[in-house]
Amino acid sequence: MTYCVGLKLNRGIVMMSDTRTNAGVDNISVFRKMFLWEAEGERSVTLMTAGNLATTQAVVSLLSERMKPAEERGDPSILEAPSMFQVARIVGQTLREVIAEQDGRSGLVADSAFSATLILGGQVRGGEPRLFMIYPEGNFVEASDDTPFFQIGETKYGRPILVRAYDPDMSFEDAVKLLMVSFDSTIKANLSVGLPLDLHIYETDTFHHGLIRRIERDDAYFNMISEGWGVALRDAFNALPPYSFR
Amino acid sequence: MTYCVGLKLNRGIVMMSDTRTNAGVDNISVFRKMFLWEAEGERSVTLMTAGNLATTQAVVSLLSERMKPAEERGDPSILEAPSMFQVARIVGQTLREVIAEQDGRSGLVADSAFSATLILGGQVRGGEPRLFMIYPEGNFVEASDDTPFFQIGETKYGRPILVRAYDPDMSFEDAVKLLMVSFDSTIKANLSVGLPLDLHIYETDTFHHGLIRRIERDDAYFNMISEGWGVALRDAFNALPPYSFR
Repeated sequence: MTYCVGLKLNRGIVMMSDTRTNAGVDNISVFRKMFLWEAEGERSVTLMTAGNLATTQAVVSLLSERMKPAEERGDPSILEAPSMFQVARIVGQTLREVIAEQDGRSGLVADSAFSATLILGGQVRGGEPRLFMIYPEGNFVEASDDTPFFQIGETKYGRPILVRAYDPDMSFEDAVKLLMVSFDSTIKANLSVGLPLDLHIYETDTFHHGLIRRIERDDAYFNMISEGWGVALRDAFNALPPYSFR
Repeated sequence: MTYCVGLKLNRGIVMMSDTRTNAGVDNISVFRKMFLWEAEGERSVTLMTAGNLATTQAVVSLLSERMKPAEERGDPSILEAPSMFQVARIVGQTLREVIAEQDGRSGLVADSAFSATLILGGQVRGGEPRLFMIYPEGNFVEASDDTPFFQIGETKYGRPILVRAYDPDMSFEDAVKLLMVSFDSTIKANLSVGLPLDLHIYETDTFHHGLIRRIERDDAYFNMISEGWGVALRDAFNALPPYSFR
């Protein structure tokens, strides 16, 4: 499994992904699920992946290959597309093609064993920062004021705190705290989601990557949150009055 | 979907179930998923059901029919079985038979469209209170000190708070509060889980049903918890220090 979250804030986009992949519980590896592309001063694009690892690696490789000057075969590149919407179309089409190729058929590809789902975020000069969720069929939806964040992978354990504590005006510092609480709840409940975590914070209108950090197993802040959240939850629970049988 | 939880405490067993069933989001009904049988002074048995409604209703009907004196055909009755373990065997066998009959085959039945999963709790004089989770195959596992509660149905949203706040020594009042928080998180996230809720509290060594209550949509305590928990969660979140970028 996997857990990735993209938060759209007023001041930018914060993305976090785990790094655990598994083929059975007895075969666990660390693989990066967050990929970044940049044209300094012009655009910053971040992609997070959940699903079949061969599929997502192929998608990332294809997207990267198309950027190489030697490969100017007319294939559009996500570093040249004129908007984030066009970047999303390229990524979606690439994803759909890779799955269809593995499957040897076209059509609905969400049920394929080679399926994958992606979160794409970033900003291209001339447009706003945008956040998309891209489906195996290659189509996608965009985050809005009503749905300002996307999750992929094991989404359920970490959702209640996102729903309750997300605020579009929150600081980057609070957003990272929120993501760490959400990831901690997920990691505690599902063995197939695990540290280290990858973090990228894109600040609106900077048009280059912001803070990129890997949060390792021994990260002091994550461990403090992990312990502190348990205590804080129990305190919050104790603060509510008990049921009365009258 | 469905959400049911059974908590094994030192002072007894607390069980809560929702009542929503659906065949598509445009076809929603209220059905009871908690069923109780009692031999006053001798045993109290509670069953909660998740899965195909035709299957679970057939299981409950078969279990009830076998108790009628007119039907003394040698079929064992859950009111006569000498222990909770034997009650669990009868329930498990009945469940497996109903699914196999719908399927027209025997074998592994967890993947059947007619599948169901059950939580069984209670006490028979001469034994301890016991809590079981019964699988579609008819086999079952028992709650222990390491795993003192069971969930069936939509289990993920409501699990983090159970893991963090459960305490075997807790009062019944706190246990109901805990269940309400867990159900509220689930109901907020999944349309197919809904009020009203059914509650049964069995107190150890009483050998009769304890408090049985239906928590309706306008229940003042539930609504207070639902609002209060959001505030309490945000307060708990705010109490933790924000991330520092150094």
